[in-house]
Amino acid sequence: MTIITLTTDFGLADGYVGVMKGVIAARAPGARLIDLSHAIAPQDVRGAAALLHRAIPYFPAGTIHLAVIDPGVGSTRHPIIVTTPDAIFVGPDNGLFSAALAQGGAQTWRLDRPQFWLPQVSATFHGRDIFAPVAAHLANGVPAAELGSPLPHPVRLPPPPEPELKPDGRLSGRITHADHFGNLISDIPAAWVADGRWACRIGGEQIVGLSRSYADAPPGQLLMLISSDGFLEIAVRDGSARTRADLDVGAALELIPLR
Amino acid sequence: MTIITLTTDFGLADGYVGVMKGVIAARAPGARLIDLSHAIAPQDVRGAAALLHRAIPYFPAGTIHLAVIDPGVGSTRHPIIVTTPDAIFVGPDNGLFSAALAQGGAQTWRLDRPQFWLPQVSATFHGRDIFAPVAAHLANGVPAAELGSPLPHPVRLPPPPEPELKPDGRLSGRITHADHFGNLISDIPAAWVADGRWACRIGGEQIVGLSRSYADAPPGQLLMLISSDGFLEIAVRDGSARTRADLDVGAALELIPLR
Amino acid sequence: MTIITLTTDFGLADGYVGVMKGVIAARAPGARLIDLSHAIAPQDVRGAAALLHRAIPYFPAGTIHLAVIDPGVGSTRHPIIVTTPDAIFVGPDNGLFSAALAQGGAQTWRLDRPQFWLPQVSATFHGRDIFAPVAAHLANGVPAAELGSPLPHPVRLPPPPEPELKPDGRLSGRITHADHFGNLISDIPAAWVADGRWACRIGGEQIVGLSRSYADAPPGQLLMLISSDGFLEIAVRDGSARTRADLDVGAALELIPLR
Repeated sequence: MTIITLTTDFGLADGYVGVMKGVIAARAPGARLIDLSHAIAPQDVRGAAALLHRAIPYFPAGTIHLAVIDPGVGSTRHPIIVTTPDAIFVGPDNGLFSAALAQGGAQTWRLDRPQFWLPQVSATFHGRDIFAPVAAHLANGVPAAELGSPLPHPVRLPPPPEPELKPDGRLSGRITHADHFGNLISDIPAAWVADGRWACRIGGEQIVGLSRSYADAPPGQLLMLISSDGFLEIAVRDGSARTRADLDVGAALELIPLR
Repeated sequence: MTIITLTTDFGLADGYVGVMKGVIAARAPGARLIDLSHAIAPQDVRGAAALLHRAIPYFPAGTIHLAVIDPGVGSTRHPIIVTTPDAIFVGPDNGLFSAALAQGGAQTWRLDRPQFWLPQVSATFHGRDIFAPVAAHLANGVPAAELGSPLPHPVRLPPPPEPELKPDGRLSGRITHADHFGNLISDIPAAWVADGRWACRIGGEQIVGLSRSYADAPPGQLLMLISSDGFLEIAVRDGSARTRADLDVGAALELIPLR
Repeated sequence: MTIITLTTDFGLADGYVGVMKGVIAARAPGARLIDLSHAIAPQDVRGAAALLHRAIPYFPAGTIHLAVIDPGVGSTRHPIIVTTPDAIFVGPDNGLFSAALAQGGAQTWRLDRPQFWLPQVSATFHGRDIFAPVAAHLANGVPAAELGSPLPHPVRLPPPPEPELKPDGRLSGRITHADHFGNLISDIPAAWVADGRWACRIGGEQIVGLSRSYADAPPGQLLMLISSDGFLEIAVRDGSARTRADLDVGAALELIPLR
């Protein structure tokens, strides 16, 4: 049973996602549908790309990831398939699949064969009219090479700024993600701070050392720990670091080595 | 594998929808469940009816649409099934299925056989106690005629005001739907404006001509285009027309022909 | 086909729930996944326990309930399985499964066998790393006794205050749940008020007698009726009692007998 994951900025109120599922289920009744998120901020291609990148390793090989964050829908941007040794991606050519494209063995196909789409294609909802039926065909075993033509230069997002180990021994990075709990996840890899001998000044407070779990700090206190994806995370036990420190995605973070 | 779609105003927080799915899955393990929306505004029968109407064409024939927007639950309003040549509907007799009833070949059945319901029927949650088990029986192939008795005059919503082509050449219509992105969808059919020679004054601004896609306008600018369901839509590229024009569902819209 | 329900405080935006489903689907492709709620208030173990307790009777015997409201993740709290004659529960040992533990025949197992988990276990996301794979193994028929060791004294929540029938004939109770509609559900059992001869003073207004359904009162009026789970409920027809009476979970409720 092939899995198709769905990631959009459509929200769940309007029935858009349900309609895409109807289109898929009508064509690939055996495919299993799993929602990743439909609460991507409108047009936040980069945020969706990062969410996909975090999620993919937990799905079986051959999973089809359908993602529609598509501000250019109906324009000249291409609809594409990206195949990697592990997974297949379907969506707009706007950088959503940059992480997959950076992998060895990635291939991109431009969807240019309307016989595999809905008979009528709107200019505003390719999720329903192109991507959902194409995902269904993929789930049914139709190869990407039959659904499109090779696209040599797919769009890639400019790489984000890299975290830095500075000459004076400090680390600098950025908040890349704030989750539902208000946990602030950074781009500083766990390995850089694994010795725990670091302090961080944030929102007028100082966090010293690394906690192992949320429960290691008293309720309400800011702490640093390793996120579930292996990066430095700022959190508050039973609370929101985002609110507490008044910080959000993109904010700079500096860590000072403890002597 | 029969599909059952679910549409309610229950939200997703309280477990009401999950419980309905448990009731169905226990009785019709082979049925496939697809959520259309559980974020219908409380008691918004008309909004749910419109959402269903937009979604139905994308589901395979024989799909069962379970919809529970039910301010009259526990009163004398009937629980019903509506069958059409394409689909089956289960829910309260309050106009939810008006579009289906307007189709040729629609038949309505009043659910009056408690042996097909949960043993205990509450006065406040027929979604769980009546509609979910009945949908499961339908998915298992029990005919509507066995689950209820013919109901000759089901409730229909009063038809909405029609868009108008005025003697002076102007078009008037209304905003019928505002989506998650803040796109404002009207009741003016695409065919009326297909020549693109129209202007619209809205929120103190003038929109001239028809864009093909969101990306045809500069970010932040109001535009008109054809919605994915074939109606005139007001949108803002990478933004919300609802906020920008301070308009909402029900607002009047007038289009002036360009000379 | 075994059902696995999912209950968390993760929200649906970050992909955490989708990733858990990927982990399960990769290991137990035949299991059916049903969401109960992912909108539990952060760290609200008691609220989630109550929601589970209300939902369980509607699922078939043998259903696996995976619940992750886990403020102690990564600390010394145990990951556990609770088995009852009707169902299986997987999650943290923090009282989430108190109702199941109160049932005859409940057994608890401490999950202490990492070979059944993901190869890498984070300190912040046991839902993905421990509970999801364990739920998948259970769905595949691996017995709880193989996945863990008996745990003699699992954590139970302190019992909530009981509603009271007072010597002067009054009833006192509490609001235990406020739902999406703003309905306020209490802990006063239906049987205590079934004769309908009760009045309640709430938010400066008096409600007299028991309505059968929401539609029994004029729109906007406070009413009392029996909830779908068999408790006294305060509601407003086509409105929110929570807003109208400015009451919330935990508020005291007193009913006065009518003479």
